[in-house]
Amino acid sequence: MKDLHLQALKDMIASKWENILEQPQALQFANSLMGKDRRVYALYLTQVYHYAFHTARNQALVAVNPNNTDIHYMQFCLEHALEETGHELMALHDLRSMGVVINDPEKDMPPALPPTQLLIAYLYRIATHGNPVQRLGYRFWAETSYDHIRGFMDKLSTSMQLDKKQMTFFYSHSSIDDKHAKDVEKILLHICKTEEDWEAVTRSAIITLDLTHQILKAVIDEYEKLVRDKPSDFSILHSLRPVFEKNQV
Amino acid sequence: MKDLHLQALKDMIASKWENILEQPQALQFANSLMGKDRRVYALYLTQVYHYAFHTARNQALVAVNPNNTDIHYMQFCLEHALEETGHELMALHDLRSMGVVINDPEKDMPPALPPTQLLIAYLYRIATHGNPVQRLGYRFWAETSYDHIRGFMDKLSTSMQLDKKQMTFFYSHSSIDDKHAKDVEKILLHICKTEEDWEAVTRSAIITLDLTHQILKAVIDEYEKLVRDKPSDFSILHSLRPVFEKNQV
Amino acid sequence: MKDLHLQALKDMIASKWENILEQPQALQFANSLMGKDRRVYALYLTQVYHYAFHTARNQALVAVNPNNTDIHYMQFCLEHALEETGHELMALHDLRSMGVVINDPEKDMPPALPPTQLLIAYLYRIATHGNPVQRLGYRFWAETSYDHIRGFMDKLSTSMQLDKKQMTFFYSHSSIDDKHAKDVEKILLHICKTEEDWEAVTRSAIITLDLTHQILKAVIDEYEKLVRDKPSDFSILHSLRPVFEKNQV
Amino acid sequence: MKDLHLQALKDMIASKWENILEQPQALQFANSLMGKDRRVYALYLTQVYHYAFHTARNQALVAVNPNNTDIHYMQFCLEHALEETGHELMALHDLRSMGVVINDPEKDMPPALPPTQLLIAYLYRIATHGNPVQRLGYRFWAETSYDHIRGFMDKLSTSMQLDKKQMTFFYSHSSIDDKHAKDVEKILLHICKTEEDWEAVTRSAIITLDLTHQILKAVIDEYEKLVRDKPSDFSILHSLRPVFEKNQV
Repeated sequence: MKDLHLQALKDMIASKWENILEQPQALQFANSLMGKDRRVYALYLTQVYHYAFHTARNQALVAVNPNNTDIHYMQFCLEHALEETGHELMALHDLRSMGVVINDPEKDMPPALPPTQLLIAYLYRIATHGNPVQRLGYRFWAETSYDHIRGFMDKLSTSMQLDKKQMTFFYSHSSIDDKHAKDVEKILLHICKTEEDWEAVTRSAIITLDLTHQILKAVIDEYEKLVRDKPSDFSILHSLRPVFEKNQV
Repeated sequence: MKDLHLQALKDMIASKWENILEQPQALQFANSLMGKDRRVYALYLTQVYHYAFHTARNQALVAVNPNNTDIHYMQFCLEHALEETGHELMALHDLRSMGVVINDPEKDMPPALPPTQLLIAYLYRIATHGNPVQRLGYRFWAETSYDHIRGFMDKLSTSMQLDKKQMTFFYSHSSIDDKHAKDVEKILLHICKTEEDWEAVTRSAIITLDLTHQILKAVIDEYEKLVRDKPSDFSILHSLRPVFEKNQV
Repeated sequence: MKDLHLQALKDMIASKWENILEQPQALQFANSLMGKDRRVYALYLTQVYHYAFHTARNQALVAVNPNNTDIHYMQFCLEHALEETGHELMALHDLRSMGVVINDPEKDMPPALPPTQLLIAYLYRIATHGNPVQRLGYRFWAETSYDHIRGFMDKLSTSMQLDKKQMTFFYSHSSIDDKHAKDVEKILLHICKTEEDWEAVTRSAIITLDLTHQILKAVIDEYEKLVRDKPSDFSILHSLRPVFEKNQV
Repeated sequence: MKDLHLQALKDMIASKWENILEQPQALQFANSLMGKDRRVYALYLTQVYHYAFHTARNQALVAVNPNNTDIHYMQFCLEHALEETGHELMALHDLRSMGVVINDPEKDMPPALPPTQLLIAYLYRIATHGNPVQRLGYRFWAETSYDHIRGFMDKLSTSMQLDKKQMTFFYSHSSIDDKHAKDVEKILLHICKTEEDWEAVTRSAIITLDLTHQILKAVIDEYEKLVRDKPSDFSILHSLRPVFEKNQV
């Protein structure tokens, strides 16, 4: 019974990723100029910085949720929070490593885009209120999605000529992933006891995956503003403008 | 200077509403069968119930936000919270008045749709963290939008043959509106002192207006599921199925 | 049945006050030099400033407590929070009116003493967690205690030669009291439905009255430090040193 | 400079413990009947259960305190929270191991006494508001106090004929202590950068040590009620009434 729920969750996630990666923009990505332009990647990293800043924090709050009375789940939440603490600094490192000048992140980091803000707000809400299993919906797909996106990220690193030290956030999360994926599966099977639990997990997985998709789309929208030299909160990234574009101008 | 900011905010809101009401779905609305089908309206009321349940609560939290140190603004927040307390019961009343059977709202009320959940989560987040002026962005358009939507709602009430006691939520909020609109304008001009304040207000106004648009679209998606007899969390509303559809079946 | 509980609560409060006012220190008060020394009163006002700063805030939080689902009680909490907003400024006014120089309260106001800190912490805790009736235990005695302490305060104002504008916090709270006392009695009878409710109210009344007693004792301890010229966080109050003491020195 | 502050903190703690253990009640303890009566110890364990339930939770909240921006301190907080998770179950185990029948702790566990409630409330308050170093004041003395109380606890275990499995809470915390004491000293020296930081730590150490003393006194007061067969919330502990007392009756 539990295995059926777990499989349905996995299928939903696979199908969502398939859909995201089949969007025209994603398909054209690697072949277009955009696929060679590090500003897109840098834009995305600014958003990673913002949500990663809150990951450990809202994960820790699940342990404190008054509805969370399962010692194992509390420990699981605190362990994960501990591991994720400070990971926003990897995104900051990757940005700096590409040459983006960010002295004081609090002042210099471009802002969180609307869907990033909504993801952060939603994770705090489900961490502190309602069924504490909900946040596992986010974590489950986040830990098990590297298989889906690895191919895309590899192509990206080639076309953008990124080296490892500009992708520490991505690779550090992708490598610790195999162990984590097993752990999160185990706790899911332990903690989800009712239909309502599985529904809550599935609902929050869908909402947060959709928000992630919206973050990607918002990143591309902001990128287009940069290309067209429109007013932008991300003009700090112009330093990464690729040679071919400069030549065009 | 302040007047310029205020005017820009008003223009943005007007333009957003114009855009929402010019969507094909909105234009066809009154003339289509959907425009005669109370289930769409009932669906919307279930979402009103959910966010209205939280309005007074997150409004009160702005008064407690540690960054809120302005006595007048604190009073303004508490006064508004006081006025909004229990307004979810109007949406419940309107649903019951149409004949929807909801004995215990906690069990029987259909769930909040994803954009409704995001609106609720976002309002709690901006109420408790960051610049306390942010929530005024939501409140300002919410109090000043009746001019934009009154025409639409009047058509709706005619085509769906709704009487006043089925629209108490809408009419009670629209009538107290003139005074409120002035009050919220006054406090906005009082509390917004910097460019950052106006930007924060504008940003949260945009995000919450967009979420409201998404709630409307999600309501129509759910409506289509009902019409096509697909599995739905809102099957309780089938009791409102109109005669013309029953005849067709 | 409810009347019995209410009477028991009133008797407990009366007996606590009798006990407090019969302590040797209290009895000697008006006749001793301390009874003529405004520094004691000023010391107390600094503590009033601290807890009054939080009164409206923790009162508002009771309306947001997820266990509070009674619309009338929510409204009651918000109304009271609204009335209490900014009342710390009365204590500040009274201090300044006596001649204490406090330019920026955040920097210049002497700190909250330990029992004051505990009162504040406890009120936030019971406002946000557990049975939301608990905070009424505090409010009930706070609103109904003026009869018990009026005599003492009148003597104090005479012996310290305080005029009305140096006692605005006390007199404004004591005058609105008659209406409030009735209101709080009414809501108590409305909201307390079980033995557990009455026990919760009684328990929090006892704890907060005892803390208030401890605040009074801590104030006198600090006063003695001032008299003996020991190092003190309250040395700002030395400007109120009475003539007779100066003469002695 | 930092070493001076640290030493002053240690001296204060040593002196507080000396004072506590020199109280008449403590001195007579081991030699009196009370020193042979496990009900006193069981009473204390009920209070340990209550505050230990919240230790991991309020410790985790320090990591989420918006004023906590030090990655190392965040990690320290989460690690400690992880270690402390579920430790209330040790107190429960020890109570059951002595023969106290507690089926469902939520229903059967006697209540938290007033100073225990204040300790819990205060720790939540300083965890979530103000200077995040504050909670170290509590943790520092809690981790470094076993030297002060070990002698007393050893005498107690002899006179009450307690074996190890009835003292798991005490011994498990006392044994992991040496490592912890070093860790907490290290983080204190790392995180306290200003005079204000050291003052904040010292203040919260004093307040929480004093509350602990008050818990001990409240436990003895409740014990006396049990001995005198007065109405008590702790009558469940009568099953531990010692033979000598039964003989007397």
